[in-house]
Amino acid sequence: MTATITAFAQSPDRGRGLARDMRVRWALEEVGQPYDVRLLSFKAMKQRAHLALQPFGQIPTYEKGDLALFDSGAIVLHLAQRHAGLLPDDANARVRAGAWMFAAVSTMEPPIVEREMARLLESREAWYAPRMAMLEQRVRTRLGQLSAHLGDADWLDGGFSAGDLLLVSVLLRLKGSGLLEEYPNLAAYVARGEARPAYQRAFAAQLAVFEATQAG
Amino acid sequence: MTATITAFAQSPDRGRGLARDMRVRWALEEVGQPYDVRLLSFKAMKQRAHLALQPFGQIPTYEKGDLALFDSGAIVLHLAQRHAGLLPDDANARVRAGAWMFAAVSTMEPPIVEREMARLLESREAWYAPRMAMLEQRVRTRLGQLSAHLGDADWLDGGFSAGDLLLVSVLLRLKGSGLLEEYPNLAAYVARGEARPAYQRAFAAQLAVFEATQAG
Repeated sequence: MTATITAFAQSPDRGRGLARDMRVRWALEEVGQPYDVRLLSFKAMKQRAHLALQPFGQIPTYEKGDLALFDSGAIVLHLAQRHAGLLPDDANARVRAGAWMFAAVSTMEPPIVEREMARLLESREAWYAPRMAMLEQRVRTRLGQLSAHLGDADWLDGGFSAGDLLLVSVLLRLKGSGLLEEYPNLAAYVARGEARPAYQRAFAAQLAVFEATQAG
Repeated sequence: MTATITAFAQSPDRGRGLARDMRVRWALEEVGQPYDVRLLSFKAMKQRAHLALQPFGQIPTYEKGDLALFDSGAIVLHLAQRHAGLLPDDANARVRAGAWMFAAVSTMEPPIVEREMARLLESREAWYAPRMAMLEQRVRTRLGQLSAHLGDADWLDGGFSAGDLLLVSVLLRLKGSGLLEEYPNLAAYVARGEARPAYQRAFAAQLAVFEATQAG
């Protein structure tokens, strides 16, 4: 029985691996589980059949047997708890990985997304420059705290875990902003994540979807 | 061995139960576990001893025996997995509760917090009115989707779970905004959460901290 995930038929990021299906693809590759992909148009994402799987009309979803699940963080958590490869053996360390999973999507990601949305929606507004300065400072505050915590460690808490997977995925959104590069240990941390064979396979798979849409 | 959590010595919300220790207090009450509270000044939150527990200098943290944990979502997940009372028995339903836990803090909460921050930081700016209209529309989009999903059910997915606990906690931030009241089933859902005896005990405990600071 192979799992099926959903992804954008036409990813807004043009195959740069920033859509949230990438997190689930990466996790599936890390734990060595095969998967099928069902591509959805923006229209289909807002229709009843998909809303029954994902109440907010987003991707990805995960279906396997009689389990249907949404939210990329929850899917990665489920895969990590079900299969070996994304959580340490020590019981306390397994619990602590959960802290980084939640912190990645609820502490680190919101200011980063807010900055992206401002760039997308407010760049012609009179308030854009002062708003952007404020938003970048909020991102820097979080990056500075994370950088101080990581120090010269390779990963957050011992070996690579689902917490690193989600945090690297979130930090990748900053590529091209120049902000990540202000914290060399974080830039190196993200590069270590991208260098993992499982990441590479997942990235290639999502890029192939984009390239197929271009071949038309 | 009793758990110890951290909370604000002087909560910015003046005892309204919106600080994130409330989520952990509520979960501890639901699962029937006693706890001690260590109160922290804003200064202490940014000092080395606390940053070793919470890299972002926030509350709450959770310590019990040799486990030290941060992030309210991760702490609630840990309590739900360790003790009876916050997750259903069915294996798939337990996994699905994780979806709502993550969605509460990473899909619902960010636009709500963003609106709060704009009220706090931007209310004197020239752009405040159009920005606020945009932010409220973002909150309404999420509330509308959630309302459609909940329908006339009491809870998100069968009985009360850790997913409901986090989602109600997030929606409570909208009290007084008028936005929640536009969706009567969501207002009733939040009221059901607040009516739970465990919520009431947790609320009283955090209010007592605020009242003690006022007694001077």
